[in-house]
Amino acid sequence: MSYFGNVSKIQFEGRQSTNPLSFKFYNPDQLILGKTMREHLRFAVAYWHSFTANGTDPFGSGTAVRGWDQYSGMDLAKARVEACFELLNILDVDYFCFHDRDIAPEGATLQETNQNLDAIVALIKEQMQASGKKLLWNTANMFSNPRFVHGAATTCNADVFAYAAAQVKKALEHGKELGAENYVFWGGREGYETLLNTDLGLELDNLARFLHMAVDYAQEIGFDAQFLIEPKPKEPTKHQYDFDAATALAFLQKYDLLSHFKLNIEANHATLAGHTFEHELRVSRINGVLGSIDANQGDMLLGWDTDEFPTDLYSTTLAMYEILQNEGGIGRGGVNFDAKVRRSSFEPIDVVYAHIAGMDAFARGLQVAAKLIEDRVLDDVTDSRYASFKSGIGADIVSGRANFKSLEAYALQNKPIVNQSGRTELIKNVINQYISNV
Amino acid sequence: MSYFGNVSKIQFEGRQSTNPLSFKFYNPDQLILGKTMREHLRFAVAYWHSFTANGTDPFGSGTAVRGWDQYSGMDLAKARVEACFELLNILDVDYFCFHDRDIAPEGATLQETNQNLDAIVALIKEQMQASGKKLLWNTANMFSNPRFVHGAATTCNADVFAYAAAQVKKALEHGKELGAENYVFWGGREGYETLLNTDLGLELDNLARFLHMAVDYAQEIGFDAQFLIEPKPKEPTKHQYDFDAATALAFLQKYDLLSHFKLNIEANHATLAGHTFEHELRVSRINGVLGSIDANQGDMLLGWDTDEFPTDLYSTTLAMYEILQNEGGIGRGGVNFDAKVRRSSFEPIDVVYAHIAGMDAFARGLQVAAKLIEDRVLDDVTDSRYASFKSGIGADIVSGRANFKSLEAYALQNKPIVNQSGRTELIKNVINQYISNV
Amino acid sequence: MSYFGNVSKIQFEGRQSTNPLSFKFYNPDQLILGKTMREHLRFAVAYWHSFTANGTDPFGSGTAVRGWDQYSGMDLAKARVEACFELLNILDVDYFCFHDRDIAPEGATLQETNQNLDAIVALIKEQMQASGKKLLWNTANMFSNPRFVHGAATTCNADVFAYAAAQVKKALEHGKELGAENYVFWGGREGYETLLNTDLGLELDNLARFLHMAVDYAQEIGFDAQFLIEPKPKEPTKHQYDFDAATALAFLQKYDLLSHFKLNIEANHATLAGHTFEHELRVSRINGVLGSIDANQGDMLLGWDTDEFPTDLYSTTLAMYEILQNEGGIGRGGVNFDAKVRRSSFEPIDVVYAHIAGMDAFARGLQVAAKLIEDRVLDDVTDSRYASFKSGIGADIVSGRANFKSLEAYALQNKPIVNQSGRTELIKNVINQYISNV
Amino acid sequence: MSYFGNVSKIQFEGRQSTNPLSFKFYNPDQLILGKTMREHLRFAVAYWHSFTANGTDPFGSGTAVRGWDQYSGMDLAKARVEACFELLNILDVDYFCFHDRDIAPEGATLQETNQNLDAIVALIKEQMQASGKKLLWNTANMFSNPRFVHGAATTCNADVFAYAAAQVKKALEHGKELGAENYVFWGGREGYETLLNTDLGLELDNLARFLHMAVDYAQEIGFDAQFLIEPKPKEPTKHQYDFDAATALAFLQKYDLLSHFKLNIEANHATLAGHTFEHELRVSRINGVLGSIDANQGDMLLGWDTDEFPTDLYSTTLAMYEILQNEGGIGRGGVNFDAKVRRSSFEPIDVVYAHIAGMDAFARGLQVAAKLIEDRVLDDVTDSRYASFKSGIGADIVSGRANFKSLEAYALQNKPIVNQSGRTELIKNVINQYISNV
Repeated sequence: MSYFGNVSKIQFEGRQSTNPLSFKFYNPDQLILGKTMREHLRFAVAYWHSFTANGTDPFGSGTAVRGWDQYSGMDLAKARVEACFELLNILDVDYFCFHDRDIAPEGATLQETNQNLDAIVALIKEQMQASGKKLLWNTANMFSNPRFVHGAATTCNADVFAYAAAQVKKALEHGKELGAENYVFWGGREGYETLLNTDLGLELDNLARFLHMAVDYAQEIGFDAQFLIEPKPKEPTKHQYDFDAATALAFLQKYDLLSHFKLNIEANHATLAGHTFEHELRVSRINGVLGSIDANQGDMLLGWDTDEFPTDLYSTTLAMYEILQNEGGIGRGGVNFDAKVRRSSFEPIDVVYAHIAGMDAFARGLQVAAKLIEDRVLDDVTDSRYASFKSGIGADIVSGRANFKSLEAYALQNKPIVNQSGRTELIKNVINQYISNV
Repeated sequence: MSYFGNVSKIQFEGRQSTNPLSFKFYNPDQLILGKTMREHLRFAVAYWHSFTANGTDPFGSGTAVRGWDQYSGMDLAKARVEACFELLNILDVDYFCFHDRDIAPEGATLQETNQNLDAIVALIKEQMQASGKKLLWNTANMFSNPRFVHGAATTCNADVFAYAAAQVKKALEHGKELGAENYVFWGGREGYETLLNTDLGLELDNLARFLHMAVDYAQEIGFDAQFLIEPKPKEPTKHQYDFDAATALAFLQKYDLLSHFKLNIEANHATLAGHTFEHELRVSRINGVLGSIDANQGDMLLGWDTDEFPTDLYSTTLAMYEILQNEGGIGRGGVNFDAKVRRSSFEPIDVVYAHIAGMDAFARGLQVAAKLIEDRVLDDVTDSRYASFKSGIGADIVSGRANFKSLEAYALQNKPIVNQSGRTELIKNVINQYISNV
Repeated sequence: MSYFGNVSKIQFEGRQSTNPLSFKFYNPDQLILGKTMREHLRFAVAYWHSFTANGTDPFGSGTAVRGWDQYSGMDLAKARVEACFELLNILDVDYFCFHDRDIAPEGATLQETNQNLDAIVALIKEQMQASGKKLLWNTANMFSNPRFVHGAATTCNADVFAYAAAQVKKALEHGKELGAENYVFWGGREGYETLLNTDLGLELDNLARFLHMAVDYAQEIGFDAQFLIEPKPKEPTKHQYDFDAATALAFLQKYDLLSHFKLNIEANHATLAGHTFEHELRVSRINGVLGSIDANQGDMLLGWDTDEFPTDLYSTTLAMYEILQNEGGIGRGGVNFDAKVRRSSFEPIDVVYAHIAGMDAFARGLQVAAKLIEDRVLDDVTDSRYASFKSGIGADIVSGRANFKSLEAYALQNKPIVNQSGRTELIKNVINQYISNV
Repeated sequence: MSYFGNVSKIQFEGRQSTNPLSFKFYNPDQLILGKTMREHLRFAVAYWHSFTANGTDPFGSGTAVRGWDQYSGMDLAKARVEACFELLNILDVDYFCFHDRDIAPEGATLQETNQNLDAIVALIKEQMQASGKKLLWNTANMFSNPRFVHGAATTCNADVFAYAAAQVKKALEHGKELGAENYVFWGGREGYETLLNTDLGLELDNLARFLHMAVDYAQEIGFDAQFLIEPKPKEPTKHQYDFDAATALAFLQKYDLLSHFKLNIEANHATLAGHTFEHELRVSRINGVLGSIDANQGDMLLGWDTDEFPTDLYSTTLAMYEILQNEGGIGRGGVNFDAKVRRSSFEPIDVVYAHIAGMDAFARGLQVAAKLIEDRVLDDVTDSRYASFKSGIGADIVSGRANFKSLEAYALQNKPIVNQSGRTELIKNVINQYISNV
């Protein structure tokens, strides 16, 4: 059966087409800076938003109309697998991502839960083999079940910590089974409601212990996926531990985990933390930890994670700019649509429209970013701005030959200091010309 | 002399040009929906940002390098007039706007202050006659002088209220003298620091009294400019009285001022109040008070009025969409660049680049909005969505024939309720195609 | 049976007691400014938070452990009624509030839904008669069911408008049946997801039509409750129509509804809109529409409606200050705890602790506010600050004798303008002394 | 002469006094947990806010009425020194803090600037010796002069880097000369306006180079002050490099600077970064870098640094709680009032009132925090919550004996997981009782 209606695989038809079910910018085979769009972007569909969630929000029930709603239990789980591979095929997307609890229901015991998971993982594996689709990353949902009310690795209850460990152990095994290229740690309940009852030091120490155990176990079983921390500042907890990229870097350094982890940067999480998406990507890039991205966008006037499909071309352009500048590009990571259709876009076809919107926005961003790089638009700006550090006193500073005494001696010559304009407005105007296809 | 260097009047060169001193989208004579771009946009330069301010911020001194800085007192005031008309000529912009204190220094007495003003107004009038440039609006600065520390029309000090009245009286006279098409009331200090020492009721009553006096005096002297309230939620005061368009509407209705005022909507003020620019424009439009706009943009991650030059094409497109849908378009109002170059863009040429960026962003927005209207992109969406109110029970509701009893009777038939998807993602994708010139 | 454990009615024990199940400040019979605390505060329990909700959040399942969870359907509905009256008795609270869908499940048809409601309303009426408890207000939930995905009175689907009308008609009848003192309109879905597909003018016109129908029907059946609009700026919709008190006032004036409505002001909604709670109360008070309050608090670092129990004594003090200054105090309104225990406070006893915390915070706020009034702390400040409007030119301004010409003549005398310090820091320090019981 | 009027040294008069010029809570000699209040709090006055600034804001001129305004140049600088020591004496405060540019004007050359500084430093030293007052910390203002438009240590102009180095070199020498107990680095312009023209990697590398040079030079001259980084997320730059405590920790670790630096945590900077003050203090404390605090508060509804005097007793209580829990308390740091009177509190006596408000708020916070510790209120909560990590599987986790396999084995026993309520509401209620002096 079909869950998305009579939609054959969407093709690149380009700008002439008025068909809303075609890509205008995304052409998987188009070569850009020596790689195909497909290779640059490595798109992934997020299982939870498109197959598990149903449009529920804190003030209302689900609105989504989905073909699989007629099923329940393991039948529902199986139908969702079918739907997932149908969508991947329609969109010609190569990757998908899931949490353990997205794909299979919990049972009465951990054993039963694991059996459910095993069955669905086997089914997914079959579908992957048949279709050639791949698992970008998997992860463990340790935030939905009430047992994680006080956290998982940062719980105040040792029994919960143990349960979480068992859950991640299984997830690592499934990641290996399915050839996941990455494994993500997003700590949905790893944070606090109030400091008044929280032993912050112990909780963070325990988080580090947990992650070290995960590293050890992955090595033990030969699961060589890239491990990723996904920062988020708040929601569901009042304050989450992996607040942003810098906070994650502080943590990874303190606990000697930096060599084992990169970051999965999400646009909406960035803005909730008070940063632009490109800031978080740049911070990750210059620290060598740009691992993968969760592609979505927030509403800048709303204070929660709206997880909208990404359509802002400024944001996708600057994100792709950072990725193109990153050594190895997105590497083993990808562009995962951690995005949900609006509650008011409740028909199955909206899921297709929304992915087209997001894929085209990223494809267009890639085109614009590549052109900016080819034309050396921003490179010329920075080369000129920082030229003073290439020679003379500037070179001394960078090379370590200068110290406060030599610099004071230089300054006491009282040579006029001449700064150059930063030209922000001119640069932004040029970006507009590139986006508008001038 | 020239204050902006060897820049002849900027021409529309179009997309082929790589000259940063040319417009790519703005062509004043281009016809769009039956009017020229010049008529649609009615651009204005803001005197205060480009000729009075110098890049000072709360943490540092001015950085702007300006030719007129060699002068002081009335000589400085005169030099600024020259610079203003030079810039208007370079940009081929027809309008400008000013506060009284932007154009002339205060003297030791109110009489002397007024004499200074009179002299500069006379000079401006000469330049206007010689150049054909026009005054979009003028206003009184009643926020910079320490006397307004507790407000002007909403001060707790009756002497200050009187001074403010005298100041606006003079400003109205000058507006008439210069043929201003509008007069703006932005209450920079009309608000409060803390409710603990504030008689909110008296202050708002006094504000209404002040505005009624202004209306009366303008009628008395035959100054027929459109009066405009400019909403802003905060800054400099902790809470300003004209918080947003809705707040202004509540006030104007309560005090029987609605027939005398429209609104001057500023993008950055909108977002500081928690609204999009287009929301404030739409609210104004459907209430018949869309008067003029202050074109700029804020930084959505910063909580103060950054007054950046507008470059976000989404925002300019949706703003122009509202204006095109407004009866009479922007009417007697205009698109005033209430925007300042960044402190780090301190050269005179940056002022030119920034205006080009803003003008092109609005011109591009106008093009895209007009195309959306011509193609009925959004009209088709809404026609379809609200069709149920055109006939049957919906028509009864709109016409006033329905009541709770008739509606209950209808509902008790239990006909299945079928909603349509809102298609948000699809629509956003289409907007992207229009912006990207597909 | 007991749903809250072995907790007898909580008594006022006062400051000596270390019993967490006693009030330290709230003493219902204590006289303050001529009325008892009970009369001033008119506390109400919110049915939805304490009996219907279960701790679900967007990232996780319910955590609440409740005795009534063993039931389902109408048995569950009945158990909740018992639990509600048990809690009212324990807390010695006189009032409660509910939405129609809180108290009874929907059926397969509107008829069946109404029958369910009728049965529970009858049960509630029995319990009210037996206990003497009263209904502060009821309302209709027109946001949870998927049919309201695009709004209720502001839907784009006329069938949904009709359904909503039928629902409110029934709710008004139940309000009359139970002697509700108020009826609340909170428009959970009355707003928009995006302006791109929204006919804002039609939606607001329809909202006004709906409210006029409600007014008419209430008059027809002789239901004389005070009608209340509850403003909220956002969530669940991206932008809600009743953004804040000023927006509601603009709407009520435009559509000639001002004489029929007051406002129900919620603390957390105020701060989400960018205002303090006391600001919204003050605006309501000076416009004669302070109707009732929803007592809770938000987290100022989070951007969503956290609906925490109110514990901030600054906020409760200033809220009670506004209420004490309001003519008739809270009048027919009350202090409704629209607040939920944290997801991590999942035991039944937490509901009791939380209400004690909130009631004591408001009782303490009442004590402090009353003392500030008795000592004329803030009155003395404002009397002194605004003295200049009592005589001379100030009196002329207030009385309408002044105009711009007379005020200019006054200003041209150039009398030195002498402002007084606003003394914000001193006043805040005094507030601290009152709160700290100095 | 006197700059603050006829105010003799303010005494502790306690709760009976109605004199607004007396402390109600602060008693320097009162013993709390084994130390005097004076020793716990180590209050400092901030030179820039109380002696250099004048109430200017982005929309208006200075309002402050100050006796020293009659002077200019070095005479003004000397008058301010007198005023500073007068205020320290009035308030019985032991410490003060300054930036180099607060205390002396710049000259035409760096040499002349340094001479001005030397002269004022000598005068300050005299006054210190005469009065026994001490320098809590000094720092260099590298943000006000236009030369720092693109940053100081993170400038794109090597000449500016050199100038900044010379400036800090001098500041370190003056710190040594005056026996400063700390030296603060707040990077007012160390950040970026836009990533589009910024080489983030080079700028951060250069910042690290700069700080290493500072460490080296301080060692060379034997200046043993504690070095402090002061985090701030934004303002004046759009994004500042020392965003928050975690970001500073990431930076210090990466560049091998952690052993040389602690943090100076400011309340208003914390909230601008999306954290509570106590969060930033806790993060600093558990990482061993809680160095000193800048005591002030922001307005949670405003998005800029309002630097209000601290009066929120919740915040001062929780801040003092963290300090009391810190090993060595505030140590060599102190409680510096980085706070300014409101622009509307423009009289000299407001500076006195404001410091009294702040000192009493911190004194009261100290009292409440100490009582919470003595009564083990929060310790009991956390001891109970985390008890499961003291034995059994929890102890195995903490000690490193557990791994994923042993934890999975434990979890597969399927023992019921029993969480305890976090009791947030109860705890908050208890805090209210302590603050209200129950």
